[in-house]
Amino acid sequence: MVDTLVNGTPGDAISIHDRGLQFGDGVFETIAVQSGKLLCRDAHFTRLETGCRQLSITCPDRSLLEREADRLCASLTSAVLKIIITRGMGGRGYQPPENIPANRILSVHRQPVYPSGYYRDGIDSYVCGRRISHQPELAGIKHLNRLEQVLLRREVTATPYPEGLVLDPQDNVVEGSMSNIFMVKNAGLITPDLSRCGVAGVIRRAIIELDKAAGRDTAIRTIAREEIFEADEVFYCNSVIGIWPVRRIGNKAFNSIDAGIEIMGKLISDNCIVPVS
Amino acid sequence: MVDTLVNGTPGDAISIHDRGLQFGDGVFETIAVQSGKLLCRDAHFTRLETGCRQLSITCPDRSLLEREADRLCASLTSAVLKIIITRGMGGRGYQPPENIPANRILSVHRQPVYPSGYYRDGIDSYVCGRRISHQPELAGIKHLNRLEQVLLRREVTATPYPEGLVLDPQDNVVEGSMSNIFMVKNAGLITPDLSRCGVAGVIRRAIIELDKAAGRDTAIRTIAREEIFEADEVFYCNSVIGIWPVRRIGNKAFNSIDAGIEIMGKLISDNCIVPVS
Repeated sequence: MVDTLVNGTPGDAISIHDRGLQFGDGVFETIAVQSGKLLCRDAHFTRLETGCRQLSITCPDRSLLEREADRLCASLTSAVLKIIITRGMGGRGYQPPENIPANRILSVHRQPVYPSGYYRDGIDSYVCGRRISHQPELAGIKHLNRLEQVLLRREVTATPYPEGLVLDPQDNVVEGSMSNIFMVKNAGLITPDLSRCGVAGVIRRAIIELDKAAGRDTAIRTIAREEIFEADEVFYCNSVIGIWPVRRIGNKAFNSIDAGIEIMGKLISDNCIVPVS
Repeated sequence: MVDTLVNGTPGDAISIHDRGLQFGDGVFETIAVQSGKLLCRDAHFTRLETGCRQLSITCPDRSLLEREADRLCASLTSAVLKIIITRGMGGRGYQPPENIPANRILSVHRQPVYPSGYYRDGIDSYVCGRRISHQPELAGIKHLNRLEQVLLRREVTATPYPEGLVLDPQDNVVEGSMSNIFMVKNAGLITPDLSRCGVAGVIRRAIIELDKAAGRDTAIRTIAREEIFEADEVFYCNSVIGIWPVRRIGNKAFNSIDAGIEIMGKLISDNCIVPVS
């Protein structure tokens, strides 16, 4: 079975001169696949194009990427598709050569299975010791410079917690180590502004749009560390985990996980996240 | 002629599952080669080991890396050797698998030739519009997350200037887009403290050590933007360009390029940078 395509050809090799390897010069998407369908499909391809545009990378045609994605995924019951677009080949130094074609790398992976209690009862979490830096020029983009997340995941994995809350250097809430975060206060959704750091996730966007469709406006703003502990409810989200309601962060227990569960249901109905067993 | 070695084998392919590509999860060195010799050899291998240690990457044995470097370079008159060490293979997500062997990627490239006037008369430079972010956990390390430098080099290359001065968000001087920077004031050397951002270059280190050997102490500290314009002299340095004295930055012309020229001569004598024709 073909499970990787590099520029349309089955195989798992790429040139060492690819700028993705040399400099992290590219972007990526991680897409849940269910019964052969890419969940939140349009939103993922749109973000890929947006990220490429922000970095002046020539994104391959969407129709080509979709065709290749379908070739890999059409027969899969459950999987994760990763798409990497790099700026292309060449240049020993930082300066990219002119007019090089991007490289496209598609690979399918096992959909991880998490304990059903994570979804039904919520998870316990904590505040990471490592911070994430302000980098306004790259903020929001799902680019390949992910050393901060690698180090954060190493930190989280050494704890009993499946996810950790990440702060910026000024003690503001940014995201989870591999997810976005929402808080609920007085029945309103609030999620951190990501104009200085963080990855603007596809599920985060879908939740903001759900809220809008229901006639509400998610507050997108700075959230101070203290404020999260005064939330009625908190949840993490991403394309692979879906939604993880949070039962407690450190010593703080939250009153409810209901809003998160409700949003989870809507996103599952909308074919945006994986159904929970 | 073999000009690339991937884990000791001639060839230029690497798996797409390599974490260098997936996340920029690795470090690199760029080493000038002259008459088959690696310039500033020990310093480069030491920094590679230090960077790996800082990121908890298992660095391959130095003797192995040196043997492979010599295999590629022993017969070369003039070249640039690039060594990339990545954390290794695997993991769809950020969390690295346990105990994976690092991948080592060695490649030789043409030594770029710059106008002799850059060395004899100095270069004109300017202050980049793009800033470099504070990222204290990764500061100093020559890691593979280099999108900021890619974007900076694109900016500089669109100007008439061969190098641009890069500031941090607080208007402090950090480095050049591909080099470190020194200023001279009242016959003393000053170079930016890189504990919050920037790459701690091998030539920067060599210059600090030269200064020490001469009984002086290079001041390593914050340099405000204004201060650089009050310098008697400024120069950029890295392993490939050697030293570029700076004649002017924007409208500010410097009085002298003598100290830079003198240090250039010493580093050439010490086989640390490429002789200037």
